[in-house]
Amino acid sequence: MRADELTARLAEEGARIEPVLEELIPRRAGDYLSEAVWYHMEGGGKRLRPAICLLTCGKLGGDSRKALRFAAAVEVLHNMLLVHDDVEDGDRVRRDRATVWVKFGIGNAINVGDFMLAAAYRAVLASPVDEATRVRLAATFTAALESTCRGQALDMNWRARPDMTVDDYLALVTLKTGRYMALGMAGGAIIAGMGDEVVEQIDALGECMGAAFQIRDDVIDLTAGKGRGGVIGNDIREGKSSILYAYALSAADDGQRAELVRIMAKPREQTGDADVQRVQALYQELGAFEFAQREADRLVERAFETVDRIPVRDGEFFRSLTRFMVSRST
Amino acid sequence: MRADELTARLAEEGARIEPVLEELIPRRAGDYLSEAVWYHMEGGGKRLRPAICLLTCGKLGGDSRKALRFAAAVEVLHNMLLVHDDVEDGDRVRRDRATVWVKFGIGNAINVGDFMLAAAYRAVLASPVDEATRVRLAATFTAALESTCRGQALDMNWRARPDMTVDDYLALVTLKTGRYMALGMAGGAIIAGMGDEVVEQIDALGECMGAAFQIRDDVIDLTAGKGRGGVIGNDIREGKSSILYAYALSAADDGQRAELVRIMAKPREQTGDADVQRVQALYQELGAFEFAQREADRLVERAFETVDRIPVRDGEFFRSLTRFMVSRST
Repeated sequence: MRADELTARLAEEGARIEPVLEELIPRRAGDYLSEAVWYHMEGGGKRLRPAICLLTCGKLGGDSRKALRFAAAVEVLHNMLLVHDDVEDGDRVRRDRATVWVKFGIGNAINVGDFMLAAAYRAVLASPVDEATRVRLAATFTAALESTCRGQALDMNWRARPDMTVDDYLALVTLKTGRYMALGMAGGAIIAGMGDEVVEQIDALGECMGAAFQIRDDVIDLTAGKGRGGVIGNDIREGKSSILYAYALSAADDGQRAELVRIMAKPREQTGDADVQRVQALYQELGAFEFAQREADRLVERAFETVDRIPVRDGEFFRSLTRFMVSRST
Repeated sequence: MRADELTARLAEEGARIEPVLEELIPRRAGDYLSEAVWYHMEGGGKRLRPAICLLTCGKLGGDSRKALRFAAAVEVLHNMLLVHDDVEDGDRVRRDRATVWVKFGIGNAINVGDFMLAAAYRAVLASPVDEATRVRLAATFTAALESTCRGQALDMNWRARPDMTVDDYLALVTLKTGRYMALGMAGGAIIAGMGDEVVEQIDALGECMGAAFQIRDDVIDLTAGKGRGGVIGNDIREGKSSILYAYALSAADDGQRAELVRIMAKPREQTGDADVQRVQALYQELGAFEFAQREADRLVERAFETVDRIPVRDGEFFRSLTRFMVSRST
């Protein structure tokens, strides 16, 4: 499948879950929940995760209509995690709009996220498949949530960590985005009747793609910003452990390392544009951007190797999907 | 069963879930999660909810060992909701200790709560029962979580609401504590093989008991404090819609109503002890405490009627349990 064909197919598939989402979380005045949910969910999400879920199910010979609820649940989980993450990271802008906690307050943002998680489980458990499959879906969903929380815990508590290594970084992003990245695909495969060995390979694929994605995100943060009002260097302001930071620590001399840690450890509001530029220059000087590129390439290569191990006839679909993700991630 | 016998049995049953909890969320240095979980979970919880779950299962003829994981999940859910609630309400003290967000930060408190929820689902889904029963357990668990979030949304957004009625109050507490109060019992009944009609009666019982509990909590807040450093009148400081407030609004004249709403609408840090005493005096004058007592009595009576409709032979156990709860709630 060509990239433009795949993009069109993904958009088409993603659109199928809109009515499912509307049914799952109806807009109701006065519930003090659905307004915030839809404020967030309409803010420009591309429904990529549910689209991948539906396509995976169909390509593996399953009836993708049976995956609609699970696909919707994956989208709700994704958005719920963003709502909570924005509070946790103190981010005020997402997709160029005020984040939920800025608009509705911290209390509502936390509770809305919890509510979304309940709605997501409701969808998973109502999947029109036999009960053994529903249990498998819910367990897979739960494992992804748990892994993401484990990764997020490291992400928050390793800020400006002076002895952070590239291996620590990879462990963090694998936990934080690996299972979660693969969740739609894994659910689609389960609904298509695939066994655990297929799901395990898909998880492994998700780990590679998730890490590659995250590395790309780290680089974008210092080049184009992340749609947060176009601000560059958010990760540096937050002292977040990016791959650039982890690599630079290992390549720096003592003076550079001390300067880097000092800037990263500064509270967000005290980190100025000059600080960001200084760190950017350090990363440049130490070859951190090239390292990130090499690391992403390595992960992409591993992703392709993993795809070839998925024991299904239509490996071409997974290869297309991986290429698509990769072109977005480098 | 006599009250002291029941108390002893509940303590005994509650202790059975400790090893299950330890296995579910092992204490691991450096995960930045389990320390906060156990800091919170060891802070004096009585494991009442899991005890009720196990006893219910056994009394209905089930094997209570099969309910251990579900019982542990109910306890983890209970604690997770408290962790998030404390952030949402800005409460700094619980059970006379610093709350999780005060000790570990808001970001960690939110993420720890999400992680606990994932662990709770992991336990529910691993219950040693057939898959249809596991789906039923997970759906019941999800419905309780969702209802609690709906109630919490009203609770947060109806603060100092000038047209709050007693019916609004009852709708709020039924959502917030009804399903959730009955969750342990409902799960125990499901594992014992009871049909939906039994679970529905248990839910109805939970609604009465939950509302009676909440009314008691409202009164305690103005008499003994809620273990938050012995501070009296927390609800007034937070502008929380208690039954006292809802009733007083309906019984007050225009001047009293305006004064009441004015004090309730004050930001927490601007509400002084004199404000609390003034509202207390108003409640006294308007007969709000007597009304709360009557309302609790009415709910207790309805709880006993509901118990008699539960179509099981051992109605006596549920009557004892209701009496026990009631003696705690008035």
